[in-house]
This record gives sequence, C-alpha cells and structure tokens, in this order.
Amino acid sequence: MIIDSHAHIVMPQESYKYFTELVGGRGNPSGDPKIPDASIRASGEALLKIMDSVGTDIQLISPRPYLQLHSLKPAIVSELWNRHVNDVIYRLVEMFPDRFRGVAGLPQHRHECPSVRVVSELERCVKELGFVGCLINPDPTEGDELPPPGLGDPFWHPLYEKMVELDVPALIHSAGSCQPRESYTLKFINEESTAVISLLTSDTFDRFPALKIVIPHGGGAIPYQMGRFRAWNVRKGEEQSFDEKLKKLHFDTCNYSKEALEFLFKVVGTDNVLFGTEKPGTGSARDPVSGRDFDHLKPVIEEIDWLTEEQRRNLFECNCCSLYNLNLK
Amino acid sequence: MIIDSHAHIVMPQESYKYFTELVGGRGNPSGDPKIPDASIRASGEALLKIMDSVGTDIQLISPRPYLQLHSLKPAIVSELWNRHVNDVIYRLVEMFPDRFRGVAGLPQHRHECPSVRVVSELERCVKELGFVGCLINPDPTEGDELPPPGLGDPFWHPLYEKMVELDVPALIHSAGSCQPRESYTLKFINEESTAVISLLTSDTFDRFPALKIVIPHGGGAIPYQMGRFRAWNVRKGEEQSFDEKLKKLHFDTCNYSKEALEFLFKVVGTDNVLFGTEKPGTGSARDPVSGRDFDHLKPVIEEIDWLTEEQRRNLFECNCCSLYNLNLK
Repeated sequence: MIIDSHAHIVMPQESYKYFTELVGGRGNPSGDPKIPDASIRASGEALLKIMDSVGTDIQLISPRPYLQLHSLKPAIVSELWNRHVNDVIYRLVEMFPDRFRGVAGLPQHRHECPSVRVVSELERCVKELGFVGCLINPDPTEGDELPPPGLGDPFWHPLYEKMVELDVPALIHSAGSCQPRESYTLKFINEESTAVISLLTSDTFDRFPALKIVIPHGGGAIPYQMGRFRAWNVRKGEEQSFDEKLKKLHFDTCNYSKEALEFLFKVVGTDNVLFGTEKPGTGSARDPVSGRDFDHLKPVIEEIDWLTEEQRRNLFECNCCSLYNLNLK
Repeated sequence: MIIDSHAHIVMPQESYKYFTELVGGRGNPSGDPKIPDASIRASGEALLKIMDSVGTDIQLISPRPYLQLHSLKPAIVSELWNRHVNDVIYRLVEMFPDRFRGVAGLPQHRHECPSVRVVSELERCVKELGFVGCLINPDPTEGDELPPPGLGDPFWHPLYEKMVELDVPALIHSAGSCQPRESYTLKFINEESTAVISLLTSDTFDRFPALKIVIPHGGGAIPYQMGRFRAWNVRKGEEQSFDEKLKKLHFDTCNYSKEALEFLFKVVGTDNVLFGTEKPGTGSARDPVSGRDFDHLKPVIEEIDWLTEEQRRNLFECNCCSLYNLNLK
C-alpha cells in the first residue's frame, strides 16, 4: 500500500468567495459557507485522478499551507478560515473514506500562545472529525514580524500537551511569507532547519517523550549540514551524538531529487522517514531530465537499488501507519 | 598548494579591551587601539601552527563573523570596530605575506544602505591595504529587526558596483543572531539559502555580469533542496535551468561531512567550488568517527576517489587563485 503522508487539499471554488467575504468583513462574513456536496466531490475526484495516475492509495490531507494565512488580522479571520478548511477536509474524507485521512490546520495567530484557540480546534478535529494529525506553523507571523520563540521553547507546550494526550503527530510546515527576500517555498526549508535545531537543543523531548514530530521536505538543510551540528554537539560536550538525537524526529520524502533522497536515507536511515509527495503542489511540473513530474516520487524510491523490500515497505506504508496510528481496512 | 579560502582571524587580547571601551563609550573610546606587534605575531603564530598541522599553505583571512556586531548601536561602534579588525588583519598579512591574504569586513549597519560607509571601507581595504575580497552580511540587523531586502534587491547595488569596479569577490556570511530560535551558526545556513534564491531570481547578474559571489558552507540548504527549485524554475517557464543559473555562483567546502561534500561536487560540479575550512572555528572539535577534527577537510577531499587530480587541484588552489586574482609567488 502506498500512503502519501504529505498532501494538501485543493479547495472547492465556493470556498474562495467565503474567504474573500471573511477578509472583507474582518471576520464577520455575510453568511456561513455553503459548499455543495457536488463541489467537494469534484475536488475529491480531481485529487483521486492524480493519486491513481501515480499509484497512491491513500493521502493524509491537510490545508494548503501558504493559504492558511495565520498572520491575517484580526485573529478571528484565520480562525474561521482554518475551521472552514478543516470542515471541507472532513467532508472529503467522509466521502472517500478509503482514500483520505484528515490532518488538521490550526488557527494559529502571530504571537498568540497556541493554547485555547489552537488546542480547542485540534481537539475538535481529532475527537469529532476523526483527524489523525495536525500541521504546526513555527512562524504564524508569516515573516511580517519577528517570529515567536522556536519550537523548543515552552511557548509551544500547551499544544504539545494536547498532541500527546490525543496521540497525534504534527507535520512542521510554515505557511506564507510576507518577506520578498524569503519566498514561502524557501521559508518552508529555513523553518524546518530552525525547527530541528530548536527542538534538539531544548528539553522538549525530555518533557514530552511521546511527542511525534515530522519534519517534511527531507528535513530542510539539516541532513546536508550534519557535520556542522555534529561538531557543535561535540564542542558542547553532549553525551548523546547529534545523529542519535535526530532519531527523535521523523522526516518525509517530499524532496524532489533522487540524489537528495538517497542522501536522506543514508544519513537518517529509513525507519523514521515517511513517503510524502505534496502532489499536487510545488513539484507538479515536468522534470525535463526524468520526463516525469518532479513529485512523482514512487518510481524514484523504487529505483534506489540498495533499499531492501522491507525498507521500501516501511517508507511507503508501515512507518506512516505506525506513527499516525492509522486503522486501515 | 593548499589555499583555505575561508578563514577568520583570532583577535589579539588587546582588541577586546578596545571593543569593550568602544561599546561602553558608544563609539567614543577613550583612545586609539594600541596593539603591539608582539600580539599580532602571537596571534599569527598560533594560526600558522594550526595551518601547518593540516597542510594549509595560505589562508584568506577575514573578521570572525559572529564578532562583527553589525547591529550594535550607534552605527559608529560597528564602523570603528570593523575598521580596527581590518587593520589587524592588514598587519597580520604584512607580517606573514606568504601565508595570508586579507578579506575585509564591512561596517554594515542594520537597514543602512551599503553605500557611503560600506563602500569607502571596501575601497580603503582593497586600494590601501591590498585586500582581495570582502564579506557581505545579508542581515546586518542580526535578527534583531526584520531584515533588509534580499541580496537580489537594488538595495545592494552600490556595494556590487564597487565590488565590480575593484574586481573583488564577496563571501556571503551572516554575523550574529539576536533570535534564540536561530543560533548564529544556523543563521549562516538559512541566510545562505536565502541569498542563493534571492540572487538567482533577480536581475543581479544581468546588471552585474562580472559580480563574484561565494556561498560558503556548501551552499546552505540549496544543493540538497535542488529538486524544489528546479521544479519552481520549470513552473515559472524559465528558459535557463536552475542548475545552469547556479553556475553564476561559487561555493566553498566548509561543510564538515564527507558525504555532503561528495554530494556538493556531484550537484554543482568542482569548477565553482573553493577549498575552505574556517579553521579554527565551528568544526574545530574531534570527530569521534574519523578521529580527526571535523574541519580537517584536506584528507576528506583527498579520499574522495572519483575526483581527478585536476579537479582536486582546482578545488585546493586554482579556483581560488582565479576568482580572487591571487598573485602568489
């Protein structure tokens, strides 16, 4: 079974009207979003067509990060919007229960502590909507202000407590970027590197040993920059090596080059890596070298000849099932 | 010949007293820095001992980035300090002319346009002190404010104009970090990734085709994240591939893992990569796996068995001589 652990929804057309009114009304839209079943079905069928074309059985589907808009003011705008997106995901999963599982977007807002607003939406999504995980945006200011403290800071503990209580993982995924110097797609990468170092140089996993964190896109810069952090770790006299510390985290394969994926598997192993493609998304363009879309990663992993069958199965299916407690028929 | 293109000075003890008075006096120190020749010599001999122990013939030596302190207020503090550091580097190079070449630190300050203050110090260093290049810090706020525009923005053109006029390269190297979420050593990496993308998605090299830019530490995250930017490039309908665009930049080997260096050479080739170790620095700690210091990179490169002798010679010597116009006896 091929489980794509990293996929984002394509919203139905009606949602954009709701969003526009929500922003225009500063959180007081002229009415509730009315999304007909037919629109959800059309959105789902378009996704299924893509999934079938690349052999994906199931997608863990979350809000599209750059459209989460965590920095929009007032906070109620992003709260209502993210709630709406979660509701659409829920309906999609209900409609195609064999093909999708929901991953929640959270109504984070700039420097607001991720306690009441965020925690209650996570709880709703997991307990009422059956979602299996959530996204965390490490910089909900989206680069419009100096960011909140790093993910290793107690600022984030209320959210971690709830995640552990509900036993759901988080995919660390920044959203938009208000800084022209750092496009949102580049900010993903920089925020991932920052997340890894902030978490691993803090006491987060001592306090929350059951916390489940996935660093997508192959782990930002870190696997490639391991030497730098191995050296720092030795200089600081740490008992545990940096390579050992890294095993507290999970990664995904949403990195669109074969050489980089081979590198990832060699540096962090295959036990903590989940198959993920973010298709359709950034990588949905034809690679003139391979003749395939950049995000068509199943054959790329199949072609890495030194992986065993067991390792491939873990990457494609078992690691994800185990981390997300997936109950698949 | 082994040329380490990326090395930072260890300042003589007396300089720290000067710095402290400079900061305390808010740019009005109680007197000029008095650094005896013996102190410069001691500093230089300590460096030579390290260089000899690892087989380095010549270092291109610049200010230690995290001690450049570009965000200290008022701007005159960082101006006088960076000028002082350049003067010490000059004296070191004069004392050991066969072993060092000077690379200038610039008195950048927060959001100040790098024109008068910065350009005049670069000109002094190159024309009067014989320096061969400079550092550029892409974020002179050091994370204390939102950063200035990316390196692809016209904000930086006055500096690029002067660099081209003087025909000197810049090593892109951020300095400190005021954000606990992003240590200075991690900020180096993130700023390098940001620099690459900002430069290559701008018209900088059309306007300044002779501009020489070195992205250190193996290029931040970019070589590992190539797939993402290759895909973006295709989606934007660009004529030139991202791999081709990358050839406008130079990189260095100051990345402390063999697997990453092999990866770098495979992705960007060896014609645009300069040997660099930043020794002594972050990598000066014993790697328990190799039994060598992380930053002892000469044997690492010698052990990469698929490199030709010519490629190794280019990496160790020729690429650097050519880029920096080194006139070595």
